[in-house]
Amino acid sequence: MNSNIKISYPGSEKVYMQGSIYPDVRVGMRLVKQMPTVTVNGGERVETPNPSIYIYDTSGPYSDENVSIDLEKGLPRMRESWIKARAEKDADNIGQMYYAKKGIITPEMEYVAIRENMNCKDLGIESHITPEFVRKEVAEGRAVIPANVNHPESEPMIIGRNFLVKINTNIGNSATTSSIEEEVEKAVWSCKWGGDTIMDLSTGNNIHETREWILRNCPVPVGTVPMYQAMEKVKGKVEDLTWELYRDVLIEQCEQGVDYFTIHCGIRLKNVMYAADRLTGMVSRGGSIISKWCQIHQKESFLYEHFDDICDIVARYDVALSLGDGLRPGSIYDANDAAQFAELDTMGELVERAWAKNVQVFIEGPGHVPMHKIQENMERQIEKCHNAPFYTLGPLVTDIAPGYDHITSAIGAAQIGWLGTAMLCYVTPKEHLALPNKDDVRNGVIAFKLAAHAADLAKQHPGAMVRDNALSKARYEFRWKDQFNLSLDPEKALEYYKTANHVGGKYCTMCGPNFCAMKISQTLCEEK
Amino acid sequence: MNSNIKISYPGSEKVYMQGSIYPDVRVGMRLVKQMPTVTVNGGERVETPNPSIYIYDTSGPYSDENVSIDLEKGLPRMRESWIKARAEKDADNIGQMYYAKKGIITPEMEYVAIRENMNCKDLGIESHITPEFVRKEVAEGRAVIPANVNHPESEPMIIGRNFLVKINTNIGNSATTSSIEEEVEKAVWSCKWGGDTIMDLSTGNNIHETREWILRNCPVPVGTVPMYQAMEKVKGKVEDLTWELYRDVLIEQCEQGVDYFTIHCGIRLKNVMYAADRLTGMVSRGGSIISKWCQIHQKESFLYEHFDDICDIVARYDVALSLGDGLRPGSIYDANDAAQFAELDTMGELVERAWAKNVQVFIEGPGHVPMHKIQENMERQIEKCHNAPFYTLGPLVTDIAPGYDHITSAIGAAQIGWLGTAMLCYVTPKEHLALPNKDDVRNGVIAFKLAAHAADLAKQHPGAMVRDNALSKARYEFRWKDQFNLSLDPEKALEYYKTANHVGGKYCTMCGPNFCAMKISQTLCEEK
Repeated sequence: MNSNIKISYPGSEKVYMQGSIYPDVRVGMRLVKQMPTVTVNGGERVETPNPSIYIYDTSGPYSDENVSIDLEKGLPRMRESWIKARAEKDADNIGQMYYAKKGIITPEMEYVAIRENMNCKDLGIESHITPEFVRKEVAEGRAVIPANVNHPESEPMIIGRNFLVKINTNIGNSATTSSIEEEVEKAVWSCKWGGDTIMDLSTGNNIHETREWILRNCPVPVGTVPMYQAMEKVKGKVEDLTWELYRDVLIEQCEQGVDYFTIHCGIRLKNVMYAADRLTGMVSRGGSIISKWCQIHQKESFLYEHFDDICDIVARYDVALSLGDGLRPGSIYDANDAAQFAELDTMGELVERAWAKNVQVFIEGPGHVPMHKIQENMERQIEKCHNAPFYTLGPLVTDIAPGYDHITSAIGAAQIGWLGTAMLCYVTPKEHLALPNKDDVRNGVIAFKLAAHAADLAKQHPGAMVRDNALSKARYEFRWKDQFNLSLDPEKALEYYKTANHVGGKYCTMCGPNFCAMKISQTLCEEK
Repeated sequence: MNSNIKISYPGSEKVYMQGSIYPDVRVGMRLVKQMPTVTVNGGERVETPNPSIYIYDTSGPYSDENVSIDLEKGLPRMRESWIKARAEKDADNIGQMYYAKKGIITPEMEYVAIRENMNCKDLGIESHITPEFVRKEVAEGRAVIPANVNHPESEPMIIGRNFLVKINTNIGNSATTSSIEEEVEKAVWSCKWGGDTIMDLSTGNNIHETREWILRNCPVPVGTVPMYQAMEKVKGKVEDLTWELYRDVLIEQCEQGVDYFTIHCGIRLKNVMYAADRLTGMVSRGGSIISKWCQIHQKESFLYEHFDDICDIVARYDVALSLGDGLRPGSIYDANDAAQFAELDTMGELVERAWAKNVQVFIEGPGHVPMHKIQENMERQIEKCHNAPFYTLGPLVTDIAPGYDHITSAIGAAQIGWLGTAMLCYVTPKEHLALPNKDDVRNGVIAFKLAAHAADLAKQHPGAMVRDNALSKARYEFRWKDQFNLSLDPEKALEYYKTANHVGGKYCTMCGPNFCAMKISQTLCEEK
């Protein structure tokens, strides 16, 4: 295995912004330097400088040439000293929500406040996001900072609708296809393109070891579905699942450093049968497993019954809960139906129970939803779940495009992100068809990064437009390299550009040299 | 050149639906047959049939195995007899709008009424779309049937917000890259994947010949920007353009059979300078050319001044006008600005002048627009342009994703389509970077087909959900072939599916054999 994986971005420098409350808070960012704008004035060449642009950076130490990477040792444990200092003071209550409610701003909170405001300071853009604002959002449950005390390698990030829209990528071996080495490389690959969190959905052998490698080398929060490991333990026999066995899995994963758990605790015995009326039944793995358990034993699920116990466990590690939507619609036809909304009501009840124990919580959402039914999802989630963050899979706005579902879902994701969804779970082109390879992951991540960014623009997040404006100005001035360096995927942009015969440079190959609109337009302006 | 190009779709049969007003109206469609659903009931295997599904078909005779294709001869001239019959009665007034206003339903109108309602009859779905409804929409200018009398090879289709959302693809050689043969193949390629109209944007040599080949072999309406040919005639010297020269180009193209012209007649001398305040000036080729002309000659553009003359010419051929948005924004920053909206006002004035001469007209729209500014575009267009159909390029909802702009624009396209845009101009992954190759065209077309279909679902177009429901049911029942055959790109779906190791078939490779949600869910239902 390549134990010296590094990430580099063209024209980009790794820089750190220091905290003012906590001087040891150092927020990693990318800084893209631009070429000057060149004009000719009275026969003289004039250079006007263009500002450097900060870019939100999920690549962690992998893009810092001063940090040497050793996968055997794992990443630097950035948060360790903060966590230790807290543990010395409060042995039992160590969570972000606990401190937030007490009025205390943690280093993690200052970290995310700096991270969310990248270009604001330099460009004089006003922002509502202060460390105190972050604290308040966490205290009131509107935002979550997933940060297991046993995952100090993770850089703090925040999930909430008053912040930048985040994206999650799923990785994981299923049965026989991929190896542990591949999974770690996939995790780093996701971070390279901008994945804000990673869910490790491995279901085969070596679940524990795969996760250990990922956690120790992952600069972003890691989520799991603990039920998958529980199912391995009972060798796929649903009926053999018990609370005790599941609890042990939770503790094991808390100890390892998983930052959030998807738990399908919103399925009630009385709601299971709603799915029978559907076109596509239940499409959530975790949801279908626990439903089957309920049906076999004819009793309420242990995830629901033991929800308070679950909260007690995860609170000790500050693991966040992601309430999984076992009854999410798997087709346009099933969207916004009774099954889906019954589960949402139960989730709303559980949110309040989690908060009572200072457990951070967010809510998973659909799925397949036509555009005219997206808004109802968002509004209902906010109402029923008391403003807890929403985390949706897509939604896919049509069922008819297998092979292109990264696009059908990016369309829904951009819209629901604009309406208030805090995190978008990516979908790759292979959704419904096969496991994604590296190229599929890249395509899925970029599709969702652009959807999330489109949502940030529509929400008018402070400074979100800075990057668009810089890139468009570079485009207009034929500063091709700046255009590529500022783009979500500089390598792809350059690769496509190179397929054309560029003569001279001052036009693009769509129009040819004589008809370039931007060139004519520039002449118009110069002649004015 | 391959003069026997054929198109085939797996599991799909070419069928024709006959008109009842006009028995010689035969609307080509694809019919996808499905496998039965197999269940086991009391140990006995039970087969329940699934209905055949009609699919809107833009592939014309290319997908009819009973028609032999000869590119030298061109396609069968389906509309010829209808056109002749009309010409014998009314020598001067031969347009769809003229007849519509007179209360006459043409064969073209019945054709599109049948085409828009594909699955409604068989499945008993009520539809507002009758031939009379089509007539009324055309009469009142809310919809356009582009149908040059000299392009009888084209199959009638309708562009209007109360119909299925359509997509246009741009093809065309620029300067040196592509050959005539390639252009014709690109046209057929676009039709294969679902392009509803084609714009031939060729700008190099052989413009006339390229267009001739395309027109004679194209089963969908063809649009052009006549200014490009005019520019060839003046060898790129903007100042040498004249009304007379431009008029001759119009007549030449009317005679050849172009179905609609993009004309940048909305730019007034007083508005040209608005663009100087922009981040990215003017990004429309036609717009920048005519603006430069206005500036050089310091007078109103001949496109605006001679708009009535233009209408008189195109009315004789029933060529539709697409009022080009020369001042469309080229960046998020420039969206919805004074320049853009000033041009829209002028277009609104011209719409009424076109209608007075029974000329069908639609309006081109942006461009780059953040999501929260899309709705204003649509509402303002409807108001200012008196309900004439809107035809937008995207819009792209962010500037930061060169290489993925088919996705940034599909996001905007789906939304504006839902809000009422009648036709969406596709964008390929190479937008801003290079000319698209065949694979880029396919990706662009499918991205826009799915966006248009998502809009149809959101608009609740009669029967739009039939295909989604059938595909999802097939997916749930592991009828893989049916799922692929019903999808927008069956070849891609199959290709991706094959990358996985499918054992046995009754699960997909995302979950593996033990954890398949749909399998467990089916078991739940069976056991009920």
